[in-house]
Amino acid sequence: MTKKAVVLLSGGLDSATCVAIAQNIGFDVYGLSFRYGQRDNHEFEAAEAVAKALNIKRHVIIDIDLRAFGGSALTSNVEVPKGRSSIDMDHEIPVTYVPARNTIFLSFALAFAETLNSNDIFIGVNSLDYSGYPDCRPEYIDAFQKMAHLATKIGVEGNNKVKINTPLMDMTKTEIIKKGMSLGVDYSITTSCYDPGQNHLACGQCDSCFIRLNGFAGIGAVDPIKYQS
Amino acid sequence: MTKKAVVLLSGGLDSATCVAIAQNIGFDVYGLSFRYGQRDNHEFEAAEAVAKALNIKRHVIIDIDLRAFGGSALTSNVEVPKGRSSIDMDHEIPVTYVPARNTIFLSFALAFAETLNSNDIFIGVNSLDYSGYPDCRPEYIDAFQKMAHLATKIGVEGNNKVKINTPLMDMTKTEIIKKGMSLGVDYSITTSCYDPGQNHLACGQCDSCFIRLNGFAGIGAVDPIKYQS
Repeated sequence: MTKKAVVLLSGGLDSATCVAIAQNIGFDVYGLSFRYGQRDNHEFEAAEAVAKALNIKRHVIIDIDLRAFGGSALTSNVEVPKGRSSIDMDHEIPVTYVPARNTIFLSFALAFAETLNSNDIFIGVNSLDYSGYPDCRPEYIDAFQKMAHLATKIGVEGNNKVKINTPLMDMTKTEIIKKGMSLGVDYSITTSCYDPGQNHLACGQCDSCFIRLNGFAGIGAVDPIKYQS
Repeated sequence: MTKKAVVLLSGGLDSATCVAIAQNIGFDVYGLSFRYGQRDNHEFEAAEAVAKALNIKRHVIIDIDLRAFGGSALTSNVEVPKGRSSIDMDHEIPVTYVPARNTIFLSFALAFAETLNSNDIFIGVNSLDYSGYPDCRPEYIDAFQKMAHLATKIGVEGNNKVKINTPLMDMTKTEIIKKGMSLGVDYSITTSCYDPGQNHLACGQCDSCFIRLNGFAGIGAVDPIKYQS
């Protein structure tokens, strides 16, 4: 029987690569996306496009409203920083940080995995390009995994353990893109920009665009998405 | 300055007691409740009544739809067991278990606490009367606390630690009720039944009613809520 995995699917380059990696090692992929009061629907539409292109088993979308709490540029009216250098990014938690976001996402993934009798969750975090978010660090993922094992039937009744798979953790953005290309991922349908303009065109200036563009440059490739000119 | 605490508020006897305990030790209480596809609105209305009666600072209600995953009597059409003895309850995870529910609830509480600059979350779990749920055990709470500390700005930037407070953990239901009464909690507005009938009357037969009724009996008091005759 094919094993099942829940993959957190944002519509970005990393999570699309995660889906392809999980499928490549033999998992049936169940995708999980969130509408969480983002400024814009482009992320969510990209997640649906990735789910379809990679032919996953099922795609569940959960609506949650993190705006009830406020506190982040991605869900409120704080200005998204543009044109920061990688040095800035190394030393502070950016205003685009959404409080406890990965914890909330992984918690829903855990619920989904438990109902599927799946032990495996995939999340496309990586520590090299992680841009300052505390909930992308390996020690955080380890702690979540330990907690998840104690939280669920799997841990109480079975001999299996919940595993939070982070195949991208130690990869650079360039390595991620290379890997995805080798697995046939079509990056033209993914999106990364924190603050897209008209027609969902990426700004090319925010931390996320900066990291993405550098990633493609690293293998001498051109990013197939369109940017604001 | 008064310290802030986020208290998970279900409308039940335990969470109402938690609010009173947090207030009694000097916290301003920010209540957090969830509409998560329960069969019935009675829990949620009770949470609002408790928030009002105990005069908390703010009450945030989050809508999440756990029915997207299925898998529990409280959110789908599985029959709620009636008339089980406490021996049955000791030895199995009941069908009323909702996958990863406390993990999801605590994750939202963590996001809320972070936006309030609060380090304290209260949850009314207890291990003695816990009725078989894996995510009510002290080792689970400890693991969540460790993870939460790594997940957030508080853990990265500050000297403070996220604390998951479980003041009811080692109390019997009778001790909880005694404590709440000493702090002036009005239990007539709380609700505990998994399967209430017409006019929200408690069934008196499910695990939760059974534990509650035993709790009041333990101090020779009469439960002030109405039951189906």
